Amino acid sequence: MKKIDHFSPREIRSLVRKGKWDKPTAGLAMGYAQANLVILPQKYAFDFLLFTQRNPKPCPLLEVLEPGEYRTKFLSSNADIRTDIPRYNVYRKGELEATVKEIRDLWKRDFVTFLLGCSFSFEEALLRSKIPIRHIEENKNVSMYITHIPCKSAGVFHGPMVVSMRPFPPDRISPAVQITSRYASVHGGPIHIGDPLKIGIKNLKKPDFGDSVTVKKGEVPVFWACGVTPQAVVMEAKPDLCITHVPGHMFISDILNEELANP
Amino acid sequence: MKKIDHFSPREIRSLVRKGKWDKPTAGLAMGYAQANLVILPQKYAFDFLLFTQRNPKPCPLLEVLEPGEYRTKFLSSNADIRTDIPRYNVYRKGELEATVKEIRDLWKRDFVTFLLGCSFSFEEALLRSKIPIRHIEENKNVSMYITHIPCKSAGVFHGPMVVSMRPFPPDRISPAVQITSRYASVHGGPIHIGDPLKIGIKNLKKPDFGDSVTVKKGEVPVFWACGVTPQAVVMEAKPDLCITHVPGHMFISDILNEELANP
Repeated sequence: MKKIDHFSPREIRSLVRKGKWDKPTAGLAMGYAQANLVILPQKYAFDFLLFTQRNPKPCPLLEVLEPGEYRTKFLSSNADIRTDIPRYNVYRKGELEATVKEIRDLWKRDFVTFLLGCSFSFEEALLRSKIPIRHIEENKNVSMYITHIPCKSAGVFHGPMVVSMRPFPPDRISPAVQITSRYASVHGGPIHIGDPLKIGIKNLKKPDFGDSVTVKKGEVPVFWACGVTPQAVVMEAKPDLCITHVPGHMFISDILNEELANP
Repeated sequence: MKKIDHFSPREIRSLVRKGKWDKPTAGLAMGYAQANLVILPQKYAFDFLLFTQRNPKPCPLLEVLEPGEYRTKFLSSNADIRTDIPRYNVYRKGELEATVKEIRDLWKRDFVTFLLGCSFSFEEALLRSKIPIRHIEENKNVSMYITHIPCKSAGVFHGPMVVSMRPFPPDRISPAVQITSRYASVHGGPIHIGDPLKIGIKNLKKPDFGDSVTVKKGEVPVFWACGVTPQAVVMEAKPDLCITHVPGHMFISDILNEELANP
């Protein structure tokens, strides 16, 4: 039997749908874009769509579905957003109520689904350019932090930007900027390079999400806007209901990362 | 007295606001981005925002204002969208009802304003690279055509893509693609190069909007998605009310074209 590492996006979604894969998706279906998920009732949809328009770095939109629609069109022609994500977080009034493996029973006809780009796409581009990434070397989840950089508010949505951090030696920073800048639809170039305190991060060793990674002597922390930002924003804005993926447990699409590169 | 060509964006908006400039804005405030305008009642706002997300080439969003808001934040800190555009088209149920110089009397608290990128921005980049543009040489408005390329529909909005055409000799096509591709937020690279019939244009000499320009022997017509597309879509979707700029009579912003270039 072939290993899951060699499964196609469709095969992995099928496993997930049957409840046979509820783990993180890093390293799966290499070459294909993975996406962050946000589902909101329709009354919040305009405000949130406007929020993504004003904050394209943390919230780069890949696809938005019509109210009630759970089948994607652009990212895949045979996916069901209610079942094809390994784990979902269900927030009510900003509080995490439950973590579940499918949301068919929760689904309502006024739900609007947003799928946002994920840094896994640009990480693959870095690896292809022989730029090693620490959390992958250490077999961990990327370090993520809530900063004091405010997102631009839109309607009821406001809150701080969440960033992911990858440490690099000084001679790797410029190529890392160049390569990731080619992927505007998956967060693009870094938003901060260097001193974590400048963006409100007091202790690099204590990330708010994900794992702590080794920062070697002489290495510089480089920070990218992160698709977990909507979860921090939902915790602040407290909509009646919001369903997201569990960080690291992404939607796997049929779109190649390369298709998402800037022209 | 200095000529209007040398006026700042703020000075031109002030003239427009006082009703002293109601002509096209091509060539004014060189270096600064100009924008297409679409105003819709709030009940259409989510659908139209989704339409722009799905059709970023004809509808590249520069700024969206909250319901009722007529002051821009991003494109300028001292503009009034009700008075600062030289001429407005007012559509009711898809029919052009009037062309007016200001819309203060029409303004309603549920109006949502969308400002979209304009090809004037990439034309300036072409000129700076010494690539001449025919309609500018001939002192005309660019040729625009309704194609048979369908936009991706969103809610009530659907309709054909409108394109602008600039003819180039074969050796200029590649640089024209390269340069305009750097400006994704102002339509980006061409959507079609060559045979007009392939995109449903029967007669290059009879544009649907703007002027006819000379296409010299051996030159190839190159087509870009155009910000007049929303007007064609509004004519098809027939919302109760929609207010747009009159083609060529744009909003002049305080943002430099260079600030809109891809990283």
